[in-house]
Amino acid sequence: MTATNRQIFLIERPQGMPDDRHFKLIESPIPDVEDGQVLIRTLYLSVDPYMRGRMSDVKSYVPPYKLNEVLTGGVVGEVMESRNQNFQRGDIVVGMLGWQDYSVSSGQYLTKIDPEAAPLTAYLGVVGMPGLTAYFGLLEIGKPQPGETVVVSGAAGAVGMVVGQIAKIKGCRVVGIAGSEKKISYLLDELSFDAAINYKTTKNIQADLEIACPNGVDVYFDNVGGDISDAVLRFLNHQARIPLCGQISMYNLEKPDIGPRITTSLIKTSSMMKGFIVSDYAAEHPRGIVQLAQWVKDGKIKYHETIVEGLENAPEAFLGLFRGENLGKQLVKVANDVR
Amino acid sequence: MTATNRQIFLIERPQGMPDDRHFKLIESPIPDVEDGQVLIRTLYLSVDPYMRGRMSDVKSYVPPYKLNEVLTGGVVGEVMESRNQNFQRGDIVVGMLGWQDYSVSSGQYLTKIDPEAAPLTAYLGVVGMPGLTAYFGLLEIGKPQPGETVVVSGAAGAVGMVVGQIAKIKGCRVVGIAGSEKKISYLLDELSFDAAINYKTTKNIQADLEIACPNGVDVYFDNVGGDISDAVLRFLNHQARIPLCGQISMYNLEKPDIGPRITTSLIKTSSMMKGFIVSDYAAEHPRGIVQLAQWVKDGKIKYHETIVEGLENAPEAFLGLFRGENLGKQLVKVANDVR
Repeated sequence: MTATNRQIFLIERPQGMPDDRHFKLIESPIPDVEDGQVLIRTLYLSVDPYMRGRMSDVKSYVPPYKLNEVLTGGVVGEVMESRNQNFQRGDIVVGMLGWQDYSVSSGQYLTKIDPEAAPLTAYLGVVGMPGLTAYFGLLEIGKPQPGETVVVSGAAGAVGMVVGQIAKIKGCRVVGIAGSEKKISYLLDELSFDAAINYKTTKNIQADLEIACPNGVDVYFDNVGGDISDAVLRFLNHQARIPLCGQISMYNLEKPDIGPRITTSLIKTSSMMKGFIVSDYAAEHPRGIVQLAQWVKDGKIKYHETIVEGLENAPEAFLGLFRGENLGKQLVKVANDVR
Repeated sequence: MTATNRQIFLIERPQGMPDDRHFKLIESPIPDVEDGQVLIRTLYLSVDPYMRGRMSDVKSYVPPYKLNEVLTGGVVGEVMESRNQNFQRGDIVVGMLGWQDYSVSSGQYLTKIDPEAAPLTAYLGVVGMPGLTAYFGLLEIGKPQPGETVVVSGAAGAVGMVVGQIAKIKGCRVVGIAGSEKKISYLLDELSFDAAINYKTTKNIQADLEIACPNGVDVYFDNVGGDISDAVLRFLNHQARIPLCGQISMYNLEKPDIGPRITTSLIKTSSMMKGFIVSDYAAEHPRGIVQLAQWVKDGKIKYHETIVEGLENAPEAFLGLFRGENLGKQLVKVANDVR
């Protein structure tokens, strides 16, 4: 056990792409545990693209991070001390906690997990927030039908790879868009996508989409936005559905992006586009977790993780998301599980 | 009865705003009626913004008009001769027919109407295609709830004024956006909208919207697109709904319009945007017509028409739509009902 609590603070709000100067590693004492609280040692923390939005001081679906405070996100940790009757020392929990070695929690929004049921890291990925995002966005908004074509951007990310695999389970033709040959090979060879397009090396994404989607596009699950989405929207079928999950291409722009207006495409095809956040479906998360865990157990959903070691490397792991370095879920391993 | 059949042909495809040179009045013989057909004398014809799309040679939800053929659209006419057992001389019918004095029809897509139940012109407006567009777009996509705020652009057009009145019936706060003081007065004084904004004279549409929508926007029924929509989207509440009906601001642009990307606004608010065309709800039109006619009869929906006289003036009436000259439904009176 380290004698101090290392914490990553946000010390400056980024304009455009963040870099090292926006983050600072601080050392503090390990916090005291009061009545009703638990002390949690961080094992893994999750870095996710949506966090970029919280680093700016703008209204969104989650409030901005505060300056000169510890960053927060999904964490799997071990209960080291408990003064809360719902938890005991040794419990493994998942929750929204700090980018730090030790967190104190009231227990609210903290969920005990079964380390035998799935690997700990899966609770931050395929059966955690990204998996649920894929599950509800695709099934509740995209409503894929057998034989339809589903295109997913950011296909080799934590959300995208679950989207594509659920669409395969539902009997769809699945086309992924991703940004490296390693990712393309993974989608085609490991996950059995029907087609995959490398947007970084393609000479003509329109031509590639035309070949990949001979029957047009019925569902476009969008993690990316920008030019890639502009290209996909040209192939919408009548009554297409577009779950808008993220727009990673825009998160680091210094001013609002402009592009072709998309409304006429939606009108001409009677298509529907809907933004969402996983918490919109919070009441139904338990059923999503059960189903995802079953599919993982049955080998119908595979997953991949990219794990960086060391809390001090969390900012770099986060920044790597925007360089497309991660295949699957990007995690930071903070400590060994020493039970 | 005129001895010839005057017809308005499309003789050149407009790039940008159409003008006189794209249309030509032709004189032909009155067509012969064959077995199974009816001859219809045009009484009123409807000019509608969507027709601009059909004048270009691009794929859309309806095929383009053919060059050097008569233009077509909604018509109310009188059966002059029938060799079809479903119609007889003197019947009043509504259907998609030509911009001409006389049309021949097989009877398919031709509907007999009751001239006692509503004025003939209403079948091209409030209980016709525009009324049904308002009804299904607002109720099936917008799903307005009591107490919510509904904003409608193109509010003083044939569709917009029905949208606003149905939203009032549903107990909503209704805000209209239109382009003349005459229209604004009509919305406020005659249709009891809660607020109305003149986009042509406002100094700051954002500030006006902030005052008009103190509780944000739950439903935005969009007939217009462009800058006006950009402004409204800033006020979306969580889970807002945006029926996309038309984008009249864009129909005459010579190249695709660009603007701020709207996807992040939709994600931040979990909002839904859906294009549609009235025929998407064709199976349910009868119930829509019954309800609209009842509301008109009960005085709960008022309507207004702008009627130009003379077939030769149909192109000008059509072009006037893009100058915002019409209050309510724009019609062309072609002949008197002489029964």
